[in-house]
Amino acid sequence: MPAASDLNVTTLAGGVGAARFLRGLARVIDPARLCVIVNTGDDEEFFGLHVSPDLDTITYTLAGAIDQSKGWGLPEETFRCLEALDRYYPETWFGLGDRDLATHLFRTHLLRQGQSLSKVTAAIARAWGVTATVLPMSDDPVRTVVHTEMGALPFQQYFVKGRGEGQVSKVELCGIATASAASGVCEAIRSADLVILPPSNPIVSIGPILALPGVRQALRQTAAPVVAVSPLVAGKPVKGPADRLLSGLGIEVSVTGVAGLYQDFLDALVIDTQDENQCTRLEQLGLTVIATDTIMNDMEKSVALAQVIMQHKHLKR
Amino acid sequence: MPAASDLNVTTLAGGVGAARFLRGLARVIDPARLCVIVNTGDDEEFFGLHVSPDLDTITYTLAGAIDQSKGWGLPEETFRCLEALDRYYPETWFGLGDRDLATHLFRTHLLRQGQSLSKVTAAIARAWGVTATVLPMSDDPVRTVVHTEMGALPFQQYFVKGRGEGQVSKVELCGIATASAASGVCEAIRSADLVILPPSNPIVSIGPILALPGVRQALRQTAAPVVAVSPLVAGKPVKGPADRLLSGLGIEVSVTGVAGLYQDFLDALVIDTQDENQCTRLEQLGLTVIATDTIMNDMEKSVALAQVIMQHKHLKR
Repeated sequence: MPAASDLNVTTLAGGVGAARFLRGLARVIDPARLCVIVNTGDDEEFFGLHVSPDLDTITYTLAGAIDQSKGWGLPEETFRCLEALDRYYPETWFGLGDRDLATHLFRTHLLRQGQSLSKVTAAIARAWGVTATVLPMSDDPVRTVVHTEMGALPFQQYFVKGRGEGQVSKVELCGIATASAASGVCEAIRSADLVILPPSNPIVSIGPILALPGVRQALRQTAAPVVAVSPLVAGKPVKGPADRLLSGLGIEVSVTGVAGLYQDFLDALVIDTQDENQCTRLEQLGLTVIATDTIMNDMEKSVALAQVIMQHKHLKR
Repeated sequence: MPAASDLNVTTLAGGVGAARFLRGLARVIDPARLCVIVNTGDDEEFFGLHVSPDLDTITYTLAGAIDQSKGWGLPEETFRCLEALDRYYPETWFGLGDRDLATHLFRTHLLRQGQSLSKVTAAIARAWGVTATVLPMSDDPVRTVVHTEMGALPFQQYFVKGRGEGQVSKVELCGIATASAASGVCEAIRSADLVILPPSNPIVSIGPILALPGVRQALRQTAAPVVAVSPLVAGKPVKGPADRLLSGLGIEVSVTGVAGLYQDFLDALVIDTQDENQCTRLEQLGLTVIATDTIMNDMEKSVALAQVIMQHKHLKR
């Protein structure tokens, strides 16, 4: 086996939970050998700007620039422009900080000039000195829409404005029928030495990536072990509405319920020790189970979790 | 004669100098009867945003929101976004404040949706509670390019980055051949009871407006008196490079030189008492000359100057 620092690791990521994991992983492996495929179903246009919340959370985190307390955005932000936008727009509920705005301006500018989201994302990562490869899942627009009793809500309306409340009846991925995975996405899965799904919402963070043509197949066919970290701890999400999304779609709200969504390609599942009661059921699905402390409330715990996974890097079933 | 408050007044305006005058005029007449036709030759795209410096200076001023000390932009500005843009762009010399950015975002957003600059300008004025009509000179792009020994410089590069330095050899209005005056521009000149050219740079502020098809003709044909305020005081510009622009183009740097540029349509010229030595020459051009204090370093002086002009509103030659 090569040393951990020689491995090419590909990860599928949503926002905050994934970022918490990746900050640790990037200290355990050579970040230049890390590829992060990021959900863009949460992307939204605000005030004419193309905002990619998950991409920015991942990039800022890998740059060591993220606001640690919130888990997203830049530290010591001000919201002077957003406050001023209130004069022009009826709604200004999405928290665009003044420093963060520069990223959205740059992204929007290059996209309007005809550059792909992949190219723009690479340029942003370069500007922040990020050596990992950050790939949007697709260069085509895919927009997650959550149906609740309040109607069909674009993801940010559901998640930020509506605080993830309401009874979920359906999750729609608008544009998925005509979207392709971005160039490099399937290749990064196939050529990896290890594929990791950090703790991200399985429905609205990982789900859109898996829905792209070729991605599930690449995960099934890759020679690399595929390891997921459960986003549920003690049967509940650490943060966010994963429980409401899962139950709304008729999926058991448990690590076993999550594992079922990945069953066709998953080799091992990392669960929190609080969920060890699920071990037998998970093993019956043919999975290797790794039980450890998965709550990453500081960098040390993120590093420790990454180390546990890298110790199990040979777990191909 | 109708009372001053019943008069429809149309003005042709550049940026700071014109704004200083208009803040006073809007107190002397009913602002709802004021129409300001604004130069857009200074417009520029920065970071993918459509910036209209003169339009914003006029609108912010009429809203009572301008930064009084600078004469442009909003007071108590911060530049956090601009500082952050430094990571993405090689040049960030144009001072876009965080609050001011909201205006550029809104303008750019609506323009990209296909709205005309006139409509967007009206929406911005409405958002600021401005009852005067603020009209861009054209909905078509006209870009002022100043040729100096440093080459052909787009106006903001010449004026802001280059501080108006260099020997001017030519001023080019790119796009003028295919541009039309915005809807309402010529009508506002023809239907006015009084037309005023506040103290604005005759070459790069008033020049582009006059170069639009139909504008000079409307000024010649209107039944309204046309009164200009000299931007030169004691033979020198109060601010900016008007002297270098005039001399570079072979025009005498004096109130008489300026008057010559407007000779075909002007009825009266307001000059500073410091330029009274030019009275005879100006009268030889057939102009009525009004000599008064034209330096508007506070609101009272702006109001006083507006009052002087409104007292001479019958000066059709």
